[in-house]
Amino acid sequence: MKSKTAYLTFNTEKKIQIIRMTEQVEQFVHESGVKEGLVLVNPMHITSAVVVNDNESGLHSDYLRVLEHLVPYGDRYRHNDTGEGNAASHIWRQLIGHQVVMPITDGRLDLGAWEQIFYFEFDGQRPKRVLVKVIGE
Amino acid sequence: MKSKTAYLTFNTEKKIQIIRMTEQVEQFVHESGVKEGLVLVNPMHITSAVVVNDNESGLHSDYLRVLEHLVPYGDRYRHNDTGEGNAASHIWRQLIGHQVVMPITDGRLDLGAWEQIFYFEFDGQRPKRVLVKVIGE
Amino acid sequence: MKSKTAYLTFNTEKKIQIIRMTEQVEQFVHESGVKEGLVLVNPMHITSAVVVNDNESGLHSDYLRVLEHLVPYGDRYRHNDTGEGNAASHIWRQLIGHQVVMPITDGRLDLGAWEQIFYFEFDGQRPKRVLVKVIGE
Repeated sequence: MKSKTAYLTFNTEKKIQIIRMTEQVEQFVHESGVKEGLVLVNPMHITSAVVVNDNESGLHSDYLRVLEHLVPYGDRYRHNDTGEGNAASHIWRQLIGHQVVMPITDGRLDLGAWEQIFYFEFDGQRPKRVLVKVIGE
Repeated sequence: MKSKTAYLTFNTEKKIQIIRMTEQVEQFVHESGVKEGLVLVNPMHITSAVVVNDNESGLHSDYLRVLEHLVPYGDRYRHNDTGEGNAASHIWRQLIGHQVVMPITDGRLDLGAWEQIFYFEFDGQRPKRVLVKVIGE
Repeated sequence: MKSKTAYLTFNTEKKIQIIRMTEQVEQFVHESGVKEGLVLVNPMHITSAVVVNDNESGLHSDYLRVLEHLVPYGDRYRHNDTGEGNAASHIWRQLIGHQVVMPITDGRLDLGAWEQIFYFEFDGQRPKRVLVKVIGE
């Protein structure tokens, strides 16, 4: 079994931002030399998520509007009594998805035509890490 | 390490439909010959989800009613300005779950008594693929 | 490839309760002897979830308040016509997350500074199992 791990860093311009990261994962899968296996893409911070969906900016703004509607950022949260202001970021990341495990076949990310991997930052403007781990053969 | 990949196709009668797929995954795990490992079940389309929950039709209609209540299909979405009408399908699939990774032990899907694997179609009536990948030994 | 499986049992005092289980997973990863790989943490019951987020009690009550707000426990659900009363528990576990797959690097759970693993029980006061499966080398 082969295994290889990368720690990517994202430092977004905006507090809340969606970044496409498909190519970075593809490139790392290629470098790993793994032909058949799985790749885990997991944010190491708990106010961000990794999501597979559509590369369409309108949909991305729909996601953010829905999350704000369901769990308004400015509501009162007990977590924010600790001095933090990001309770909603923690909750959004659970509702929208957390992490993904994607397939590697014939040495490539085995994606459907519209599957793209995104980093969803809900509390950015500082360096945050995403772990990418390939296992396989 | 062994690895085996299947591409299942679902073409649902209805636009929105829930289909049990436990046996298909079990059968594929059996064929793979893997005794200890993991199986990833991942929709290759971004308006469907793979979910583990209860085989009870009342609960299935509850899921759909809750999703419609939280993210109404007929609301205005920017994604739908592109000519698509399925913005809510993309969002529902994120809220309800996306994909699962299930354990294989002693050559079998290692499920609890009530765990069943379902394909949740939110934009069907056309062929859509689900990737099943087994890795292990 | 090495593989090892544990079946943990939780029997919560309260119907709805959040329990930290990071150390139990860490300990099991250590015992497995796997240096590089993945660990799946999957509830074997469909009214509970395994979630990675913050070890902060205020946030935990925020999660539960948000879930109750979005999908009220006492609402009318068709699932509850079967004699069950836990329809909302099934739905909450889908919204909040279901399961996690976490990385093992250098023989340890490879967690970010704030990542902690929790068991979210939404229908407790009886023994319920969580499967932990390590695969790797």
